[in-house]
Order: sequence, then structure tokens, then C-alpha cells
Amino acid sequence: MPTPEQMEAAVHAYVAAFDAGDAEQAVAIFAPDAVIEDPIGTAPKVGEAAIREFYQASMATGAKLVLDGAIRIAAAHAAFPMRVMLQWDGQDTTIHVIDTFAFDENGKVKEMKAYFGPGNMIAG
Amino acid sequence: MPTPEQMEAAVHAYVAAFDAGDAEQAVAIFAPDAVIEDPIGTAPKVGEAAIREFYQASMATGAKLVLDGAIRIAAAHAAFPMRVMLQWDGQDTTIHVIDTFAFDENGKVKEMKAYFGPGNMIAG
Repeated sequence: MPTPEQMEAAVHAYVAAFDAGDAEQAVAIFAPDAVIEDPIGTAPKVGEAAIREFYQASMATGAKLVLDGAIRIAAAHAAFPMRVMLQWDGQDTTIHVIDTFAFDENGKVKEMKAYFGPGNMIAG
Repeated sequence: MPTPEQMEAAVHAYVAAFDAGDAEQAVAIFAPDAVIEDPIGTAPKVGEAAIREFYQASMATGAKLVLDGAIRIAAAHAAFPMRVMLQWDGQDTTIHVIDTFAFDENGKVKEMKAYFGPGNMIAG
């Protein structure tokens, strides 16, 4: 079971990966068979190749993540609020997002879900 | 499928239930067979009787909820950051929590998970 410090470090590594625009840094926090649902309710991306493709596309928008409150840690889970700043249809856009991470016994993220919808997107 | 407005209203009703100290108001947002995992990683509370007992005990601490950022809405899901203010061991305590709600087709919460741990609890 990962420690709270390991789980917080994974969240910060995820934010840093977007800062660097380096999809491999994001892929590195996930287990090889991880499942991503982003946003929740859409078709899951399953496994390393799908996850890599997803982050390459996400980072191509120039998206940066800004943590916007405490990282919540419980058992082998983390949840965190953030603002995602990106270009959307050629316009600066902020999306208020909450991500949840479920970790495996090796401290890798085995399940990620992102919560946001149209009402969470604002210009600027 | 509930509308975003219905899901936001459920979150506000949940906060208002704690303000009123009225467990029945909290129970009312849940489906009869709902499952609560609070905090995530602990034994689930399943069904109306267990949920009622849980909120009666929670509200007996005097806990109040203060939303601390946008309610994220995606498909039939909501996630929201908050501060929970309560008495813990006789001391004013704030806990930074993120809750997730999954809704059924009638707009009732069928699954609730709360994310927080010892590192999210601060005096004051």
C-alpha cells in the first residue's frame, strides 16, 4: 500500500508532466493496465498505449494544471481539485476539474476519473 | 438521467441538511439501496437504515459543510470540494474533504464516496 507521501508525489508528478508537456512523465505514474475515464461517463481508455495517446493529445492543447486546494488522501486513494488552463476553439479557457486516483500496491495509479462538464468551463 | 441543475440541487440540499442538523434531509437525496463509503476505503454503509444511522451520528458532532470550490458535474456524477467544520476530541477541527456522488436515473444518489485522511484534518 502506498504512503500518503507517495500518493501526493504522484499528483505533483502529474502536474509537473503537464508543465513540461511530457506525456511520458504522465504515463509513468500509471500501472500498465490502468483505466482512465476522463471525463467520467465517457469510454474508458485502458492500458499504456491508450493512456499515452490520450496524454499526447491532451498536452497538444497546451493544457496546464493548477492545484486549487488540498490533495485529499484516504487509504489508497487521492482526490484533488484543480484548474485546467488550455486553448479551446482558439480561446483561453479554464476548466474546474476534480480528479480521483486509485493506487495499486506498488504506488501506481490503476484508475483515474476526471469530473467536469460544460458548466465547469469558463472563458479566460 | 438527472440534469446538471438537479445534481447541483442535491449537493446544496446535502449541505443544507447539515446546516439544519436534519439527518432525514440528507437521507432524502439517496436512493433506498444507496452505498456510502465515507471515507473511501472503509466498510460501505448500504441502504436507507445504515445511511440514516450514519448521518445521525455525523450530525451529532455538530458538523457543518462549507463548499470550497465549484461543483463539478459530468454525465450522472458530481464531485465537490468542501471544508467540514466539527468538534473532534473537544476541539474545533476543519477537514478538507472531496465527495463524489453517482446518481441514478431518478436523480437520487446511488453511490457516495468521501475522500479525506489524517493529513486533511487541521485544528481550528
